[in-house]
Amino acid sequence: MKIHNFNAGPSVLPKEVVRKSAQSVINFNDTGLSLLEISHRSQDFLEIIEKTTCLVKRIMNLNDEYAILFLQGGATLQFSMVPYNLMHKKAAYLDTGFWAYNAIKEAKKLGKVKILFSGRKNNYTYISKNYHIPYDMDYFHCTSNNTIVGTQMKIFPKTSVPIVCDMSSDIFSRKLDFDQFSLIYASAQKNVSSAGMTIVILKKDILGKLKKNIPSYMDYKIHIQNNSILNTPNVFSIYNSMLTLEWIENQGGLSILEKKNQHKAKLLYDEIDQNNLFENKIHKENRSNMNVSFFLKNKNLEKKFNKMWKKENIVGLDGHRYLGGYRASIYNALSNESVQFLIEIMKEFERKFS
Amino acid sequence: MKIHNFNAGPSVLPKEVVRKSAQSVINFNDTGLSLLEISHRSQDFLEIIEKTTCLVKRIMNLNDEYAILFLQGGATLQFSMVPYNLMHKKAAYLDTGFWAYNAIKEAKKLGKVKILFSGRKNNYTYISKNYHIPYDMDYFHCTSNNTIVGTQMKIFPKTSVPIVCDMSSDIFSRKLDFDQFSLIYASAQKNVSSAGMTIVILKKDILGKLKKNIPSYMDYKIHIQNNSILNTPNVFSIYNSMLTLEWIENQGGLSILEKKNQHKAKLLYDEIDQNNLFENKIHKENRSNMNVSFFLKNKNLEKKFNKMWKKENIVGLDGHRYLGGYRASIYNALSNESVQFLIEIMKEFERKFS
Repeated sequence: MKIHNFNAGPSVLPKEVVRKSAQSVINFNDTGLSLLEISHRSQDFLEIIEKTTCLVKRIMNLNDEYAILFLQGGATLQFSMVPYNLMHKKAAYLDTGFWAYNAIKEAKKLGKVKILFSGRKNNYTYISKNYHIPYDMDYFHCTSNNTIVGTQMKIFPKTSVPIVCDMSSDIFSRKLDFDQFSLIYASAQKNVSSAGMTIVILKKDILGKLKKNIPSYMDYKIHIQNNSILNTPNVFSIYNSMLTLEWIENQGGLSILEKKNQHKAKLLYDEIDQNNLFENKIHKENRSNMNVSFFLKNKNLEKKFNKMWKKENIVGLDGHRYLGGYRASIYNALSNESVQFLIEIMKEFERKFS
Repeated sequence: MKIHNFNAGPSVLPKEVVRKSAQSVINFNDTGLSLLEISHRSQDFLEIIEKTTCLVKRIMNLNDEYAILFLQGGATLQFSMVPYNLMHKKAAYLDTGFWAYNAIKEAKKLGKVKILFSGRKNNYTYISKNYHIPYDMDYFHCTSNNTIVGTQMKIFPKTSVPIVCDMSSDIFSRKLDFDQFSLIYASAQKNVSSAGMTIVILKKDILGKLKKNIPSYMDYKIHIQNNSILNTPNVFSIYNSMLTLEWIENQGGLSILEKKNQHKAKLLYDEIDQNNLFENKIHKENRSNMNVSFFLKNKNLEKKFNKMWKKENIVGLDGHRYLGGYRASIYNALSNESVQFLIEIMKEFERKFS
C-alpha cells in the first residue's frame, strides 16, 4: 500500500532511514542490543554524535568556528534560549508567521523587541524585503519558512548584526551561504528525523558576552562544553538524523535537493494556478518550496474533494487548524511521484466539478 | 546471542516493547505509515497520549487532581522548571547525590535554598531521616534514588509543605502512596522508554500562585492547557512509554514489580556481602533496589574481572565515571536470569582469585 504523506511534521522520511531505524531498534550495529538500550556515553553513541556533527558541517559547508548541538524542547524552547544567551538589551525580529510571532512573544519577556516588519495584517501572505536593521541590535531574528501559511524567505539581509534564523521547516532543503548566519535552529521532525530533537548550529564567538546566571539547560556554552550530552539526549532522533544526513549526501547534497524541491513545488503551484477550482493566496515571490497551501474557490466543494483524496491514500493534506483549506508539505523525502499523484487528483476533480 | 544489559540508562527495556516499537517504526497500526511519520495532532497520536496518561494514573493510583505531562529536556530542565513554577522565595532540598546537588545549583539561581541534609561529605553513601522541613518553605525537593552511588529513599517525610520528587531512576519500580507528592518528575530512559522524554506528574492546585512571566516552555500550566502538545513532543518515546506501562500492568502492577525488584536486589547484595573479593559501601538501609554499586577490595584484580564479565556478554557494568568500580542497574526489565548470571560470574571470580 503506497501512502502519499503530505504531513507538515512529523512528516515523511526517506524509506531507507525508516528501515535502518527499525532495524536498529531491534539490533543496533550487531551489538545484540536495541538502539534504545545503549548508553549515551558509549563509544557507539559518541561516534554517532561525532559523525552527525561532521555531516551537518560538511553538508552546510561550515568550518570549525561553528558548533553543532542536538538539544530538546523544540523551536519553542529556542525562542527563549536565543534571547537568554544573546540579548543584552534589544533585538530585531521579523514577524512573518505564527511561529515568528511566538518567538517575538518569548523574546519580549527578556528584553526589548523591535519588529522590523509584520505580515500579520496581510495574513502572513507576503514578506517584505524593505526593512532596515539598526546597527545597535544584539541580533536579528527571522524565520526562513512559514510552515502554516506557506511562505519562504528567498533572500536574507546583509548586516553587521548577527543573524539568527529559525529553519525548522526548510533546513537542508536548499543551498545557502550558511555562514551568513550566526545561529540557526531547527526542530528536526520535518526534514531531518523523528520528533523530539532540535538542531542548533551556532558561531561560537557570539557567546560569552552576557553575564546572566541562566538555567544550565538554557546555556549554549554549557551544551558545547558537554558535546550535547550535558544530560541524556534523544539518542534515537540523533541516530535518525545521521541516517537522513547520509541520505542527503548520497542524493548529491543540497544543490541537487534544492533543484528537486523547486521542481516539485513548481509542478504543484502550476497546477493550482491553472486549475479553475483552486487558488493559492501567497505573494508569488514568497511562495514556499516546502509547504504549498491552497484553497477551493468554492468552499461547498470541500466535502467532495476531501472524499476524493482520502480514498486515494493521500494523508496530511488538511490545512493548518488555524487556516483551513489544504496544505501539501513537500519536504526532501516526499517523492516527485507523490506530487504528480496529487496533481492528477486535482485535475480529475476539476474535470468532474468545474 | 543473549546480552545481559546492566546499563544505568538508557537501559534494558521489555523485549516486547522493543519488538513492537520496531514494528511501529515500519508500519504503525497498519496505517502504512511509520510511527515517525504520523502527525502529533492526528487522532492516532491523541489516543496514544490519552492512553498513556490513563495508564500512569491507574498504575500510580492517582485521581484527576493530578495532571500528567510528557515533556523534553530531561530532569535537568526540571531542575529549573520546578523553581520557575513553584518557588516564591525559598525551598528546602535534600542533597543526596550528584543530581540532587545539580537540582540545588539550578534552584539557587532563582531563589533561596535551604539544604536540610547533605550526604556530600560521606560520598553520598547515607541518607539521613533526621531533618526537619520548616513549614514556610515553598516546597521540599528530594531525589528518590541516587543512580550513580546507588542509594534510595525508603520513606518520605510527613509534611504540609508540597513534596517534589525526582524519580528518574526508580519511577514505576515500587508501590508508594504517590498522592503524598505534589510533583514527581522522571526522565524516562531508565524504567519507561527511549531517551528524550520526561514524565511530569503534578497536582494541579499547586500551580498559579506565582505571577512570574516565564518562558512558555517552562510553564507547567501552559503544557497542561495544551495536553503536552504545546509544540511537537517526542512521539516515539511517548509511544514506547505506553507500551512499557501496558507491560507493567500485565506484570501485575507495581506491588508485583516491587517484589521482583527487591528479590533481584537481595540476591545481588547478598552475593556482594558474602563474596570475599567485593564490597558495597552504602549504608544498608539506604541500598538502592535499582542501582547496585560494588567495588573490588583489591583494585589490582580489576583488569581480570573486567576481562571475565566482558567475555560473557555482560554490558554496562562499569561504575559511573565519577566513581569507578562497578554498578549493576537492575531496572524492571532486567531479568532475574541476568542477575543470577552476574552472580555466577562473581562466584567463579572468587573461586579463581580469592
